[in-house]
Amino acid sequence: MGAQGLVAPSALIEQLQWRYAVKKFDPHRTIPEDVWQALAESLRLSPSSFGLQPWRFFVIRDRALKAKLLPHSWNQQQVVDASHVVVLARKSEVGEAEADAYLTDMAQTRGVPLEQLAGFGKMLKGFLAKPPLDLGEWSTRQVYIALGQFMTAAAMLGVDTCPMEGFLPDQYDEILGLPALGYRSVLVCPAGYRAADDAYANLPKVRFPAAQMLTYLGE
Amino acid sequence: MGAQGLVAPSALIEQLQWRYAVKKFDPHRTIPEDVWQALAESLRLSPSSFGLQPWRFFVIRDRALKAKLLPHSWNQQQVVDASHVVVLARKSEVGEAEADAYLTDMAQTRGVPLEQLAGFGKMLKGFLAKPPLDLGEWSTRQVYIALGQFMTAAAMLGVDTCPMEGFLPDQYDEILGLPALGYRSVLVCPAGYRAADDAYANLPKVRFPAAQMLTYLGE
Repeated sequence: MGAQGLVAPSALIEQLQWRYAVKKFDPHRTIPEDVWQALAESLRLSPSSFGLQPWRFFVIRDRALKAKLLPHSWNQQQVVDASHVVVLARKSEVGEAEADAYLTDMAQTRGVPLEQLAGFGKMLKGFLAKPPLDLGEWSTRQVYIALGQFMTAAAMLGVDTCPMEGFLPDQYDEILGLPALGYRSVLVCPAGYRAADDAYANLPKVRFPAAQMLTYLGE
Repeated sequence: MGAQGLVAPSALIEQLQWRYAVKKFDPHRTIPEDVWQALAESLRLSPSSFGLQPWRFFVIRDRALKAKLLPHSWNQQQVVDASHVVVLARKSEVGEAEADAYLTDMAQTRGVPLEQLAGFGKMLKGFLAKPPLDLGEWSTRQVYIALGQFMTAAAMLGVDTCPMEGFLPDQYDEILGLPALGYRSVLVCPAGYRAADDAYANLPKVRFPAAQMLTYLGE
């Protein structure tokens, strides 16, 4: 493992081909706890700009709560049938306080005095004070990285997912009480296992050819 | 494989812990061709909203061209030393023409007449005609998913990466000639192998604890 890698290149491709956006989950299958914990870790370990982690991940397994979300999810039944529904949220605010919390955690984790992180801290706070784009949007983009890592990790573990932009964030926020916690919902990703009769599972994956999607420059 | 999964949960976590943002690549190590092809496929197979793939991935291996990018990359030497530098770009425009190209590809791939996709096409074009946010920003967000899938896939294969927002997109675009091709650079991700003396490789990963990052609701 580590530098040796965990999977063979051909197996990786096969597994990414196996992945698709599930339309119909098997409502009777639950993700085993050890598998779920690895998926939770894939979210927590996601890379983000500066490592700031301007996010939190809300997980819903309760059927009644899932049902409340359904009408605000374009009635996509995946939200009810999937084993775990993940709501990927960004921090409502990102500023000095969030930078300090991060720097403190970094100092503790690495066993160094805060002063040793002064240079990095200055750069980070300088960015947050004069960001090149709206920080809400910047945080939103980071959340999309976490979604990418989560779906890929799930595919590696044989867990199905369905990424969703199609939901009403304001309604989700209200039902889940996110603003009071300082978060705003960005993406939803039900995870679980495809139903045996999900017709979409057998459709060939549609992707433009490599010659069109990858361009090698300077050669 | 497939539903059985490719990796054990504990191995997945270990491999994601192994990943970090490389500060110093080994300039003498090249990603083997079969491994690179799997990484290229991880980009091509990335999920995107509607499956529209509003992106292209530009790959630079040529040392002279990499050197030209260095001053526009906050002088981050990773851009020169990494085996492959990937510039993840979004389409400059996304509209009716892009939707039609996608629908045509879908019809061909699935062997169905275009008319059979009319309902989906109408929904997609309706979204693009009245998007809930700027389509440039929407496409940009999709590119972040591809970055997430790419970095996670690389970690599975034992390949190191370094995600970068810190570069000058306009300069990159000009040097690489992207606008003429209809693309705008969004992210840069050098990939290759960490140098044996990259001190950052041995620093403990800084992440807020799971209790703070994952919240279970409705239980």
